[in-house]
Amino acid sequence: MNDQLSDIAPPTYMDIRDAAERIGRHVVRTPLLACDDLSERTRGRIFLKAEVLQKTGSFKYRGATNRVLQLTDEERSRGVVAYSSGNHAQAVAAAAQRLSIPATIVMPRDAPKLKLENTQSYGAEIVLYDRFTEDRASIAHEIAERRGATIVPPYDDPRIIAGQGTLGLEVAAQASDHGVQLDALLCPCSGGGLIAGTALAFAETSPSTRIHSVEPAGFDDTARSLKAGIPQKVAPDARSICDSLLSDSPGKLTFPINRGLLSSGLVVDDSEVRSAMIYAFRTLKLVIEPGGAVALAALLAGRFDASGKTVAIVCSGGNVDPDLFRSILV
Amino acid sequence: MNDQLSDIAPPTYMDIRDAAERIGRHVVRTPLLACDDLSERTRGRIFLKAEVLQKTGSFKYRGATNRVLQLTDEERSRGVVAYSSGNHAQAVAAAAQRLSIPATIVMPRDAPKLKLENTQSYGAEIVLYDRFTEDRASIAHEIAERRGATIVPPYDDPRIIAGQGTLGLEVAAQASDHGVQLDALLCPCSGGGLIAGTALAFAETSPSTRIHSVEPAGFDDTARSLKAGIPQKVAPDARSICDSLLSDSPGKLTFPINRGLLSSGLVVDDSEVRSAMIYAFRTLKLVIEPGGAVALAALLAGRFDASGKTVAIVCSGGNVDPDLFRSILV
Repeated sequence: MNDQLSDIAPPTYMDIRDAAERIGRHVVRTPLLACDDLSERTRGRIFLKAEVLQKTGSFKYRGATNRVLQLTDEERSRGVVAYSSGNHAQAVAAAAQRLSIPATIVMPRDAPKLKLENTQSYGAEIVLYDRFTEDRASIAHEIAERRGATIVPPYDDPRIIAGQGTLGLEVAAQASDHGVQLDALLCPCSGGGLIAGTALAFAETSPSTRIHSVEPAGFDDTARSLKAGIPQKVAPDARSICDSLLSDSPGKLTFPINRGLLSSGLVVDDSEVRSAMIYAFRTLKLVIEPGGAVALAALLAGRFDASGKTVAIVCSGGNVDPDLFRSILV
Repeated sequence: MNDQLSDIAPPTYMDIRDAAERIGRHVVRTPLLACDDLSERTRGRIFLKAEVLQKTGSFKYRGATNRVLQLTDEERSRGVVAYSSGNHAQAVAAAAQRLSIPATIVMPRDAPKLKLENTQSYGAEIVLYDRFTEDRASIAHEIAERRGATIVPPYDDPRIIAGQGTLGLEVAAQASDHGVQLDALLCPCSGGGLIAGTALAFAETSPSTRIHSVEPAGFDDTARSLKAGIPQKVAPDARSICDSLLSDSPGKLTFPINRGLLSSGLVVDDSEVRSAMIYAFRTLKLVIEPGGAVALAALLAGRFDASGKTVAIVCSGGNVDPDLFRSILV
């Protein structure tokens, strides 16, 4: 299946501009917040892209919207299928619902309850699978084939990458509005769609900004792949509370982009993620899910030296179960 | 003490414009978020002023900053004194610290721990009192007199009201940016400084917008005072989880403004406030404290019929103790 991707052209800067135009009235232009307390702590100048305020609670709504808006009428009538641990699921379900497109979402049985409930609330049909024994892509492709439906992949699709890249366009423009030039941008990374699109946007609008991926320990496939120059896989026994960042290898379409445009990959452990979530609760007043908090965690834990630099961090999602959040607030 | 207030002129629209100019580079222009889910639920068009993202986690930083920036050099050297249940405390402490002004804050012994800790973290000296047996204003005035320090009152001061009113100016301008004309604005109310300043801003910039105060049950002194036409007090045994909205009567300076400009006062109970906080966590990804959530609660609980209307709600503060938040998330 994925081998066909070698024939697909990666998105260009103009694709991201087009995506921004296409999805503009559907998505939230989430704020880039100047963070005084973070700036003092790090002796840098820190801005936070509060993408938790996006519709469906994560950046995934950008890519999903950009994809479904490009379906033909016939494709719309046959529906869409997606596989996702939760944020892409909600995004595809919500974007499809908005256009009255039937959606089927393949989700892991152990996905956060909030994500399962929300996906269902957007009217999608949910098919559960076991994350450790079954292959979600095969399940999704089988359903799609049976129904003639269109697969909306989580990251390895130029329209998805372009949609996520609109976040990068916004950050670059908002940094200018704040009157600053960004030295660096830290962004959560799983399959790599968000950071690939964002890096493409910055390569054109602010090429001197260094782009760093941030991953949870154990799922640092992009960090290791960037170092090795070729894709690396995670160990099968790896575990993390960052349920939205558990992809086991860099994307086929995203990695070549990221290899060319990222400066390095940072890694944080779960306890640093918990601390970042508590900080966001106490000081920022934002609800950030584990995977959405890794860039903030990298900054707070000193995994990136922001001293003297102007830095943007992306907080990419906020869909966290009340039970997990309560256990973290202890 | 308060009788002197009859001689003090209330702030004008120009005072609010001047305040916006004065504090502009010190405060956050918090976003006015379009809320699709709230709009669907209420069959209205709902916008949320996310003032929890303000420095120190509440709108109080606006008024405090506007006040301390107008101190003379001599006044600055002698310091400031404030009394507050927590949000004004943090705001005065932080605004004073920024200008290296010594600050003493009189706080209730049962104030939320987070608010006490934060106030201390801004370098203020804290004096504790018993909210049920002692008079905080007398304690503060005694300290101020002894030290020649300046009292920064929580609401009955034209510079404080003008500072808080900059929130109203922003909402009016941001509604225009969204291309909408607001039919109504719902705003939390305690002493009434925020809503008085906001109502003054709207009277000039959007006079057709109806302004409604929202208070917790038991502390509905403004709602009852608006009905009666003269100030009413709360019962001494009233209790609420809305620790930031426990003032026992409308302000001397704020009430005449509010009597002239507010359409009505809404009231919500503690269970409606809890539900609103959970909704903010799950759907908005914002941490809102009980008192900051009353306008959202009024909307969600159907205390205000938003059907067919364009409505802004103010979420005024997010300083909530982790323990309380955990108990509410159950």
